Amino acid sequence: MNAYQSLEAHFREIANFQHASGILDWDNAAMMPSGSADVRARAMASLSVHIHKLATDPHIPDWVAGAKDESLDQWQAANVREIERAFVMNAAMPTDLVEALSKAASEGEQAWRSLRAENNWTDFKPYLDTIFQLCREQGSALGDALGKSPYDALIALYQPGIDSKDIDPIFADLKAFLPGVVGAAVERQNAAGKPPLVPAGISIESQRALGISTMETLGFDFNRGRLDVSHHPFCGGATGDVRITTRYDEDSFLDSLQGVIHETGHALYEQNRPQAYLDQPVGEAMGMAMHESQSLFMEMQLARSAEFIEHLAPLIRQQLAPSVSPSDEQWSARTLHALSTRVEPGLIRVNADECTYPAHVILRYEMEQQLIAGGLEVSDIPDAWDASMQDMLGLSTAGDYKDGCMQDVHWPSASIGYFPTYTLGAIAAAQFKAAIDRDIPGVDAQIASGDLSATKAWLKDKIWSQGSLYGMQDLMIRATGKALDVGDFKAHLQRRYL
Amino acid sequence: MNAYQSLEAHFREIANFQHASGILDWDNAAMMPSGSADVRARAMASLSVHIHKLATDPHIPDWVAGAKDESLDQWQAANVREIERAFVMNAAMPTDLVEALSKAASEGEQAWRSLRAENNWTDFKPYLDTIFQLCREQGSALGDALGKSPYDALIALYQPGIDSKDIDPIFADLKAFLPGVVGAAVERQNAAGKPPLVPAGISIESQRALGISTMETLGFDFNRGRLDVSHHPFCGGATGDVRITTRYDEDSFLDSLQGVIHETGHALYEQNRPQAYLDQPVGEAMGMAMHESQSLFMEMQLARSAEFIEHLAPLIRQQLAPSVSPSDEQWSARTLHALSTRVEPGLIRVNADECTYPAHVILRYEMEQQLIAGGLEVSDIPDAWDASMQDMLGLSTAGDYKDGCMQDVHWPSASIGYFPTYTLGAIAAAQFKAAIDRDIPGVDAQIASGDLSATKAWLKDKIWSQGSLYGMQDLMIRATGKALDVGDFKAHLQRRYL
Repeated sequence: MNAYQSLEAHFREIANFQHASGILDWDNAAMMPSGSADVRARAMASLSVHIHKLATDPHIPDWVAGAKDESLDQWQAANVREIERAFVMNAAMPTDLVEALSKAASEGEQAWRSLRAENNWTDFKPYLDTIFQLCREQGSALGDALGKSPYDALIALYQPGIDSKDIDPIFADLKAFLPGVVGAAVERQNAAGKPPLVPAGISIESQRALGISTMETLGFDFNRGRLDVSHHPFCGGATGDVRITTRYDEDSFLDSLQGVIHETGHALYEQNRPQAYLDQPVGEAMGMAMHESQSLFMEMQLARSAEFIEHLAPLIRQQLAPSVSPSDEQWSARTLHALSTRVEPGLIRVNADECTYPAHVILRYEMEQQLIAGGLEVSDIPDAWDASMQDMLGLSTAGDYKDGCMQDVHWPSASIGYFPTYTLGAIAAAQFKAAIDRDIPGVDAQIASGDLSATKAWLKDKIWSQGSLYGMQDLMIRATGKALDVGDFKAHLQRRYL
Repeated sequence: MNAYQSLEAHFREIANFQHASGILDWDNAAMMPSGSADVRARAMASLSVHIHKLATDPHIPDWVAGAKDESLDQWQAANVREIERAFVMNAAMPTDLVEALSKAASEGEQAWRSLRAENNWTDFKPYLDTIFQLCREQGSALGDALGKSPYDALIALYQPGIDSKDIDPIFADLKAFLPGVVGAAVERQNAAGKPPLVPAGISIESQRALGISTMETLGFDFNRGRLDVSHHPFCGGATGDVRITTRYDEDSFLDSLQGVIHETGHALYEQNRPQAYLDQPVGEAMGMAMHESQSLFMEMQLARSAEFIEHLAPLIRQQLAPSVSPSDEQWSARTLHALSTRVEPGLIRVNADECTYPAHVILRYEMEQQLIAGGLEVSDIPDAWDASMQDMLGLSTAGDYKDGCMQDVHWPSASIGYFPTYTLGAIAAAQFKAAIDRDIPGVDAQIASGDLSATKAWLKDKIWSQGSLYGMQDLMIRATGKALDVGDFKAHLQRRYL
């Protein structure tokens, strides 16, 4: 084996342990009995440490140096680049910190499930104390290696190629722009009178069947994936075995359906990564902002559009309410579109509409910056949360931890730096849709007729099949002609809501 | 850390990877989409190799030697004994053989699922060729290290402390004894007239609910375990997270229920192993014959007894047929007992009654002996199977591979040497019940009233909590006053069937 082949073999081995870790993570959220959290946390920590050991194998820099002298094609060269980038980050992380983070995340997530339900901030706070302490250490260690601030280094764990200095002006722009959109949209809604009622009392079995048929419409490969239920919906599993989850409420089938569509967007990216490099770093998705761009493309750009709902509405009615008349207004495309595009400031991020969602992200992003850099302590979180919610959405969370600062799984599972990727992804999704509108004449008519083939071919060609061949901004430029830019997102909101 | 503490820490680490492997195995059978078999097989092979590497760590013999000079209590000394025993076996296995066996087992089991359904021996045979070749190598390597024949060495993988020379006379005894019992039982049944009909058309949901409530009656801890569905029922998962499976047929609820009770017997053993040594070799169950003794105690000794069925019958009727009259004969204890103790030679081992079951095991045991030692080739299996079935049960499997030599998962998953443990377990189960009858006066009346507490306390005290503190025969002697002996099993069959 030459040096490059040694690298590929080594990363195939790492991929095997990542497979185990990914499936156990899915199991933890979707299947595991709650009493088994202790043994699972220990197993996950051992796997993390072992993967870290493989990822910091001292042969890697030698193989990288050797491979650079070998004749490599474009993909192989990019693979070496990605391997080197990851090695620098992994080598900066001491093993005990990897182990401590893995255990703290397992224990934190497990504790969160019950303590959130109890609105119990007092018992939850010590978990966050530990996690933010460890993530500050993690940020410092990574930041030193990358020449970044600790928080920028944490962001780089989820989305390489973008720093706070790039994100701050985008978020400032949205912070100024969105209140006007939200106000105007709410006013328009109020003028239109009483909102339509969401059809209620829909059995979980029929919601599940609708979810599965919608996933099939979107192209999810069930031969290499599953749909299950978890407390917090996600797309997980492993390369070649992609598993998404949702949750059901009989009185709110649209939330579950839109969740399924969102996670299917992630899954399509995962299932259509470059097949020849699935188990290599260059074959991975280009970061979590790009990943969220795909889930939000499906959920926001596609599934909440008047065109796609025109196609979907009769299918939904047939599956969930087959005895209802086709002309029943409650199940019409008009009603489902109104329900899918309703704007209403609320406490819960995952239930937020696309106009108020960025406020939830900006709140968390600003707090994370201060929690990592200093200026905010874990004990300050509830008050800071309340103040920011009052400021941005006019809502109070005083005393309400459950639907305030304890609502998300990210902090208890030690994913600090993830939140900004949601709004960066929403911006990228709008930019992709604008490019598709230019590149595929008549695409909206295709979508209204249920023909997604050209749209999906575009996404596969420009994004999914590219893996990490290009960096994030290069990927954006090659796909849309420009780097990430908030303009198309603002134009999209104006067009849809004003 | 002293040497003994180093051993404990090392085996805790191994237990963490065994956890991952156990959950992935369960997932493979109960959850995994079929297209993902390729990536899973690679992940399982990497895990097997890594566990093997840890289990053959060159420090182990040094730590064992050091620990022997340290002051150890009885459990710690037994732990060192078990560690040394396992090390000798693991060290005898070359790494590439471990990897090849893991891959062959994953691929064989996956192929078996579809090829068995197609009755396709031609495409199945090459998998068995590979597997028996590898298992012969495995048997030779282990046999050399243990000073045993290759087949005895394979048996020792599943049940240490017993060899062919011990098993042969037991099986010869049963081979002579059973035809008479089967003949007389069938005659008695025929004289009694037409058999009762199994209640049919029972929904899978209500069967599942019955399974769960029966597991609760038996003491299964759902806080650390689950019930799911798989092609071939099993008890698996991991220490502290015990998962059993069953399969459902709307026209045959008793099969599923008895399967659930069987696997719950395994699970009770796993869930009640010595808590202080759960992740150490001495805390493991004392081999698979002892494991099967616990599943068969629950399924055969308990759940097919007139006493327990007296307790269970009204509960079954209430859950599966609540609108049926309590006096309906089809749901009576008498009918359910008759159905549960019906004797009928058949093709399928897992459906066999307890009088004909040993014939299925002896057939496989005799073939395995020859397949490993020589005298039988894989290509001879179908004819040899047919001849043996004709000889022992008067049934032909000519051309019927599906319900003949392709019916079991054991061979395609490379578990050669496992089969004898079923009948050894049945024998031990009868011996335990006879001891319980002596030790607990009035136990059958307790069982008839649904009070299993004394029975379970006895099993926990004598078997479950003992882990591998004693070898198999010592465990038998301490629990029942004698080594494994076929007498109580024969007496049990005579009492129940004649």
